[in-house]
Amino acid sequence: MASSTMRTPILMLFSLLALFLFSLNVASSGSSSSNIRTPLQHPLDPLTKEEITLIRTIVLNKHPKNITFHYVGLDDPDKPTLLKWASSSLHFKPHIPRQAFVIAMVNSVTHELLISLETKQILSDNIHSGVGFPTLTVDEQTEAIMLPLKYGPFIESVKKRGLNLSEVVCSVFTVGWYGETKSERKVRVECFMKEETVNIYVRPINGIAIVVHLEKMAIIEYHDRNIEPVPTAENTEYRAEYQKPPFGPKLHGLASFQPEGPGFKINGHTISWANWNLHVGYDARAGVIISMASIYDLEKHKARRVLYRGYISELFVPYQDPSDEWYYKTFFDAGEFGFGQSMVSMEPLHDCPPHAQFFDSYFAARDGSPSLLENAFCVFEQHGNIMWRHTEAGIPDQTIREARTEVSLVVRMVVTVGNYDNVVDWEFKPSGSIKLQISLSGMLEIKAVDIKHKDEIKEEQHGTLVSGNSVGVYHDHFYIYHLDLDIDGEENSFVKTGLKAVRVTDGSSKRKSYWTTESQTLKKESEAKIKLGQSPSELAVVNPNKNTSIGNHVGYRLLPASVTHPILYEDDYPQVRGAFTNYDVWVTPYSRNEKWAGGLYVDQSRGQDTLAIWTKQNRNIENKDIVMWYVVGIHHVPCQEDFPIMPLLSTGFELRPTNFFERNPVLKTLSPKTFKMPVCPKQN
Amino acid sequence: MASSTMRTPILMLFSLLALFLFSLNVASSGSSSSNIRTPLQHPLDPLTKEEITLIRTIVLNKHPKNITFHYVGLDDPDKPTLLKWASSSLHFKPHIPRQAFVIAMVNSVTHELLISLETKQILSDNIHSGVGFPTLTVDEQTEAIMLPLKYGPFIESVKKRGLNLSEVVCSVFTVGWYGETKSERKVRVECFMKEETVNIYVRPINGIAIVVHLEKMAIIEYHDRNIEPVPTAENTEYRAEYQKPPFGPKLHGLASFQPEGPGFKINGHTISWANWNLHVGYDARAGVIISMASIYDLEKHKARRVLYRGYISELFVPYQDPSDEWYYKTFFDAGEFGFGQSMVSMEPLHDCPPHAQFFDSYFAARDGSPSLLENAFCVFEQHGNIMWRHTEAGIPDQTIREARTEVSLVVRMVVTVGNYDNVVDWEFKPSGSIKLQISLSGMLEIKAVDIKHKDEIKEEQHGTLVSGNSVGVYHDHFYIYHLDLDIDGEENSFVKTGLKAVRVTDGSSKRKSYWTTESQTLKKESEAKIKLGQSPSELAVVNPNKNTSIGNHVGYRLLPASVTHPILYEDDYPQVRGAFTNYDVWVTPYSRNEKWAGGLYVDQSRGQDTLAIWTKQNRNIENKDIVMWYVVGIHHVPCQEDFPIMPLLSTGFELRPTNFFERNPVLKTLSPKTFKMPVCPKQN
Repeated sequence: MASSTMRTPILMLFSLLALFLFSLNVASSGSSSSNIRTPLQHPLDPLTKEEITLIRTIVLNKHPKNITFHYVGLDDPDKPTLLKWASSSLHFKPHIPRQAFVIAMVNSVTHELLISLETKQILSDNIHSGVGFPTLTVDEQTEAIMLPLKYGPFIESVKKRGLNLSEVVCSVFTVGWYGETKSERKVRVECFMKEETVNIYVRPINGIAIVVHLEKMAIIEYHDRNIEPVPTAENTEYRAEYQKPPFGPKLHGLASFQPEGPGFKINGHTISWANWNLHVGYDARAGVIISMASIYDLEKHKARRVLYRGYISELFVPYQDPSDEWYYKTFFDAGEFGFGQSMVSMEPLHDCPPHAQFFDSYFAARDGSPSLLENAFCVFEQHGNIMWRHTEAGIPDQTIREARTEVSLVVRMVVTVGNYDNVVDWEFKPSGSIKLQISLSGMLEIKAVDIKHKDEIKEEQHGTLVSGNSVGVYHDHFYIYHLDLDIDGEENSFVKTGLKAVRVTDGSSKRKSYWTTESQTLKKESEAKIKLGQSPSELAVVNPNKNTSIGNHVGYRLLPASVTHPILYEDDYPQVRGAFTNYDVWVTPYSRNEKWAGGLYVDQSRGQDTLAIWTKQNRNIENKDIVMWYVVGIHHVPCQEDFPIMPLLSTGFELRPTNFFERNPVLKTLSPKTFKMPVCPKQN
Repeated sequence: MASSTMRTPILMLFSLLALFLFSLNVASSGSSSSNIRTPLQHPLDPLTKEEITLIRTIVLNKHPKNITFHYVGLDDPDKPTLLKWASSSLHFKPHIPRQAFVIAMVNSVTHELLISLETKQILSDNIHSGVGFPTLTVDEQTEAIMLPLKYGPFIESVKKRGLNLSEVVCSVFTVGWYGETKSERKVRVECFMKEETVNIYVRPINGIAIVVHLEKMAIIEYHDRNIEPVPTAENTEYRAEYQKPPFGPKLHGLASFQPEGPGFKINGHTISWANWNLHVGYDARAGVIISMASIYDLEKHKARRVLYRGYISELFVPYQDPSDEWYYKTFFDAGEFGFGQSMVSMEPLHDCPPHAQFFDSYFAARDGSPSLLENAFCVFEQHGNIMWRHTEAGIPDQTIREARTEVSLVVRMVVTVGNYDNVVDWEFKPSGSIKLQISLSGMLEIKAVDIKHKDEIKEEQHGTLVSGNSVGVYHDHFYIYHLDLDIDGEENSFVKTGLKAVRVTDGSSKRKSYWTTESQTLKKESEAKIKLGQSPSELAVVNPNKNTSIGNHVGYRLLPASVTHPILYEDDYPQVRGAFTNYDVWVTPYSRNEKWAGGLYVDQSRGQDTLAIWTKQNRNIENKDIVMWYVVGIHHVPCQEDFPIMPLLSTGFELRPTNFFERNPVLKTLSPKTFKMPVCPKQN
């Protein structure tokens, strides 16, 4: 069987050819990019290019002037409607009219428009009069960053520092809210030097404060407080072609091939793979949305519902420098900048492995026209982990070993909000587990200081000296996931199982103690606000109406990441706005309007529309359609290795079936076929 | 460049051939198994077959009768000697004589023997007179499990239950210590049915208590208390060839090939790969030991020391049923059963991916003769993660994207102690990070009960009903790692950096609070007993004598796993023995004798020789050669999916360079070459 024993002449020829061909370093795009066949439209499919164009036409028809589009997205159908659609057979599916939700500013007033794509009508047009502003548009940021370059005082400041104006590039920063009673749409603009390196974030021109009014598109405040040296460009460039040798260490490559083709089938945005079926949507605010994930139960001969909808609802990044130039940096990356709108095109073979399939997306530009995001996310199979195994050495005269290899399915996006790159993975396993991982890369935000060595530090710098003149400022990253689990149906409960020590005092055992469990169905929102790490417990979403044959409630449990709690005081403005981080886990009854944990209008929000406020209603969550919200955090004390670009730092958690199946659901899942390359010249 | 555009006839031929050959499902062993070239002997290389034979001869020469070998291992050289050896150039390396450490029982008395393999002499022969017994031998377990099958009362019990004696198989369980003042070498033996399934652990014959005296090799206690039904064999078999269809879901395979060959060089047990150099040893007690791991610093042009020695020192698995049949199940898998001796042969392609290299090992059987463990551990490269990336959208008129792909090196072993399989990974990254992962698979220990449905449960069962008549008993898994980090040298300190909220009260900021850090070098062992999760902090081992050019102490920090603390009372016997789990992190000054966190003699130990006792000396740990001990735990509340065999459950942590390098050490590490297969028939 082994190839080395069957080297016929034709195989020799083959081997030479193979050697030649494998040596070609093909900078190819992996599998065909964006091979999305004409979809059988799913009601959750993201808006198409044509739909966005149509929406624009409809809206401009009513509001032809002074309009900017801040959000254009699918108005997802009612859950009952969608579930009915999903449960109907192919030819009897009810028609679900496509609708869009638009947030636009018309003459500086925020409008919420509901659009029918079928009747081509505006179904409603409401004015948002509360606090908070919509997500910034990419275009207004592009416009705002050009303002300083033509602004006299700034040009003077640049000159005063001996810098070259043509090498200055600026960036927009949201300003947060610090108790002001009146808010206007303004942002801070900070500038950087791009000479000699494209790594702008490590070369800030500090000491200057620029406030831009976005509606006026003008600088309304300007201060030049103090001059700090701009950190050197040396050793900060990250593009290979601009770096000086020596390079290293050398990493050896892998050629790979799927002889049976990919294991998934893609129909539009619906993916079926192994025992999973799921819809992967895109939204300019949320990024990738996983919907209607169900898993086929081999034993029950049916697909069973697991996740109705999952996505990252908000990302809160508070910096920890209270000084005038930094205090306001308490960003809400999803609500302020748009997590989906900040997704970047992924690089085949590097951002996603070979055999990945890429999906394009469209979001609306400021003028409402569709903007193409190529290779917006990818889907690929991950090979080679162990699925389960056992060696049985305990039966005399028998050697028993069974090891099954896993393949899993990963959906990946990269969201780059300014300096940071967030790699977000959803991994689906044949065992029913869903592993969610977030990895950080990109750059630190650097504060320029007149300090070249730690010994020179005389006062609190609010960060780590990571390079000469460069302080990496302390900050956090708090991601909150919206996880609308529908375990075998909508009506679910949230169960906390405490692990409690029991003292043996009656001499009934030689043990003095043991632990047991105490399960509690949490009935109200207030009970389901969980701070992890205080006492050992397991958290699960179960279906109290469905039992396994031996009587356990079917469920999925949360295996949390390393626990990270916010450190700011709860009454501090940023923490009021980011109050959804006050607990690690929250559970709410499903409400179509409760999508964004930090609120719908997050720019300069005041915390009135957050998960922390909604849950004050203390609604019933027992045997209801419930949503679990889970916060994953990272406290970031920068270190020199994070500079000038940060090696991936990962955290993650797992949603794991727990008495959902009657038994291990992959007991009868065979390892994939193994293929050995016929000729491996360097291996022997 | 793309192959599809250059299909010459010869390529067509090639493609047909390729298609044919790739379709062969070659059940091959991956790369050549155990391709260990004649080693340039490293002082830490594990004992060879010949050495074990020689040791046996030497010992038997003195103790020719009534001797059993419980441990035979390398007596690793003094650290200073070894470091001198390591720093000497190839031709001037000092000669380090090979010595072995042996624990043997002669006429039931425990001897500790130090053997010179050069002079073939016994250097010392001391008698262990304290409490605790050595690791059980595999052979005495094999002997003990045969005893019941010839024991009248047991045969009667089997008959009474209507079971077939020829289908009974037994297993040995250590008995722990519950306050007895006199201990003898005894074990419990429990029996299972192997008819219709090899999954014995799910088919216990409960109600019977058998105590075997190991020195007498006889049953000394026997009780048959009550008859519980043996759970059914149905649906418990895990071998594919004995399972009934339908199988599914189908997973698609991957063919892969390393056109440049593997990235590592193996010389004996020394591995050099990318920027890492490390020694991978084997010990019958510890399993895989990583030693002298150093990383090449491209900027400093030298290899820098990171880890002197790392291994799993103990694994504590207390079950939580206080009843007479279960209370004693509080296992110490390393000290009682030998973690290395319990390693199992790994299955190429399934336990380790293709291109893995396998290593064989030898341990001593009871009679001192070498036992071969084929494919004891493997080393492989892991491809395809993102190493770092950034897309820069902020510079007008430029599109900048740089994504670098990672390859990492994994060392893997599987340790199967009875029912559980522990997959232990050490992953080395070019960035300097070391990721340590433990994954559990195998079987639950099942308690047979006369309950088929949860509704029938009337009293505490101390576990989950996971199948009819089968309770998966609650338990924990606590792994403790011995991590002798030598960050750029031996003299290191342990630094705890607290993240503290600061209240702004003086109006100096619009913020009301922020957080900052407070670093503290922990000076004594007592200060370095850390319970994680109580307040946010970072823990690092630093070299206080070595700074980066900007003045930060070079170091490595611990990124912990999800925190898991013991729940048992501290005065309970098992917890006294497993007191090393009372804290998550401990730091001790290096001591050659402090290897085993639960003690050298763990079977029936009483906790006198544990990490918790050693640290009561409260020794100085500042600027000393220190060892960090880290506990990773899993509370295991079984669920039906864990039955009859458990899908992998993983946990892990990271040792990450922190101001160790001047900057990101993989800034100049290029992605590996990408190779596209010339013909991918199903991909287009």
